[in-house]
Amino acid sequence: MIILSEHEIMKHYRMSEAVQDLEAGLMSMNEGKIDNPHRTVIEYPEQHASILYMPSSNQEERIAGIKTVSIFPENTQVGKPTTQGVLLLTDTRNGEHVCLMNASYLTRLRTGALSGVATKRLARKDARVLGVIGTGGMAFEQVLGVLEVREIEKLIMFNRTREKADKFKEKLQRFGVKQDIVVVDHVDEVVLASDIINCATRSHTPVFDGKLLKKGTHINGVGSYLPSMREVDEETILKSDKIVVDDMHGAKEEAGELIDAAQKGAWSFDKIYGELRQLLGKSTHRETDDEITFFKSVGAAYFDMAVAQGVYRAAKEKQFGITVTV
Amino acid sequence: MIILSEHEIMKHYRMSEAVQDLEAGLMSMNEGKIDNPHRTVIEYPEQHASILYMPSSNQEERIAGIKTVSIFPENTQVGKPTTQGVLLLTDTRNGEHVCLMNASYLTRLRTGALSGVATKRLARKDARVLGVIGTGGMAFEQVLGVLEVREIEKLIMFNRTREKADKFKEKLQRFGVKQDIVVVDHVDEVVLASDIINCATRSHTPVFDGKLLKKGTHINGVGSYLPSMREVDEETILKSDKIVVDDMHGAKEEAGELIDAAQKGAWSFDKIYGELRQLLGKSTHRETDDEITFFKSVGAAYFDMAVAQGVYRAAKEKQFGITVTV
Repeated sequence: MIILSEHEIMKHYRMSEAVQDLEAGLMSMNEGKIDNPHRTVIEYPEQHASILYMPSSNQEERIAGIKTVSIFPENTQVGKPTTQGVLLLTDTRNGEHVCLMNASYLTRLRTGALSGVATKRLARKDARVLGVIGTGGMAFEQVLGVLEVREIEKLIMFNRTREKADKFKEKLQRFGVKQDIVVVDHVDEVVLASDIINCATRSHTPVFDGKLLKKGTHINGVGSYLPSMREVDEETILKSDKIVVDDMHGAKEEAGELIDAAQKGAWSFDKIYGELRQLLGKSTHRETDDEITFFKSVGAAYFDMAVAQGVYRAAKEKQFGITVTV
Repeated sequence: MIILSEHEIMKHYRMSEAVQDLEAGLMSMNEGKIDNPHRTVIEYPEQHASILYMPSSNQEERIAGIKTVSIFPENTQVGKPTTQGVLLLTDTRNGEHVCLMNASYLTRLRTGALSGVATKRLARKDARVLGVIGTGGMAFEQVLGVLEVREIEKLIMFNRTREKADKFKEKLQRFGVKQDIVVVDHVDEVVLASDIINCATRSHTPVFDGKLLKKGTHINGVGSYLPSMREVDEETILKSDKIVVDDMHGAKEEAGELIDAAQKGAWSFDKIYGELRQLLGKSTHRETDDEITFFKSVGAAYFDMAVAQGVYRAAKEKQFGITVTV
């Protein structure tokens, strides 16, 4: 079995590959080649913690995987990561367990790739300004996902704690991002200036005012992954000409702002334009320059699988990782 | 993370420990400390294969585990094992994934330990002859489980292919089993001579004639783990004064001979004396020397967890296994 650490995956596998591999996975789903059973969740209420077991299998690629993610929010108090994931791959030609990889970077990467694939088919072709609201957890790879698919000239960023946004800017520059990066003190500046807005927060109240949205804006929302969370306001939901979700089943159970709007009767899940995979047939689904589009992501096991499979293929080709007998 | 191969587990962890750790796990279940959610099965019908994902969590021991087992019967044609398992342990104090271990020997060990725990509380105290029907897959550790709990003086064994029984005898002797071991050419000889009978077959038809059972016999059946299988005949089921199952939910879905007898109306699951864990309060549940008792095992994730946890503890104490960064 090959063991892949986060460091090794980061070193050898890039966003461009993740976007490609994710699109292949979405196509496999469209062709009915993917089993994506319900995840199993074990809760630890005293610690406000949970462990998620997310299996998936791709008949076409002859591989199955299970991501095990533990979410322990109180870990911040002991200096440990709140989210810790590993993913096991099984070759379904013979049942051999072939790879165990760190799934932390992998999860961020597939989430960024999801925003990339959605942006590619929903944002204006001439989008030049990327707004970033929230510079924590998933934000970095979400920026990379968008940079992969649009010729962005400028990034404009806001974080509740400005210092963190400044550090985020430095991190992007160290990584090699050449575009102008501006950190602003008020979120309105982001909304008024951006063609594309990335949201990646853990907020329980909307992080920007939908009234300020420019015509033609595309929004990627990867926060609000619990029913109690709200990242985007009702105005934005109602104003959006097209709302696309990564996974319908997951969105109905987890996408806080959509669930809230639906429960209030202000909006309905019937209005969703489609799942991300359904956008793959056409190069764009944008019909006018003025449309506001909103991509909402909550995650599903088969996205992880699609990217994990690409990482495993890369590990075999480029011979990285360590081999152990289990 | 510690990685434990089958070889290392075999070298450092014995049946006596497995029996103890399994009993502790059964006690935890009795105390309501164990989550044992439904397993997830992904099927590969063209290959008659499947992958089982079996999670479980012990709140008392603060550990969770998931066993991933692939069952690929056609692997015999390519010289690969038909069953390949690994088990991942997560520390539920902080969500850290602490150990990945081979689960093949582990599964055999916990199955043997189940037969041991059942035999301890159901078989006659003065049982001296252990009969073995079927000398494949699970049989070896099932013998060890019984030897752990009764002063066996003689083993009498039958296998459809006699040569395999002879090899099995040699394997037991190499392992250090000092008791007399006799291989016989007809299964009736086993049934007529034994105080305890172990069955571990993949048979679809009963492997012995229940009419020949001596009074006071205890039977351990670990085959018939699919509804289509039959290891024990209806006579034996009807003749048994006490039938104990390892897991009621699993038995109703998987124990072939019991399902068949219930469907025919000859017998009912209401007649089951109890689950194995319910026997733990008393040292014996046998009321007379004449009772016939039957323990039926199909497996459940929490048994694997209980033993895996013991293996992990041993690995930390005795410092075996290899440590990798995942």
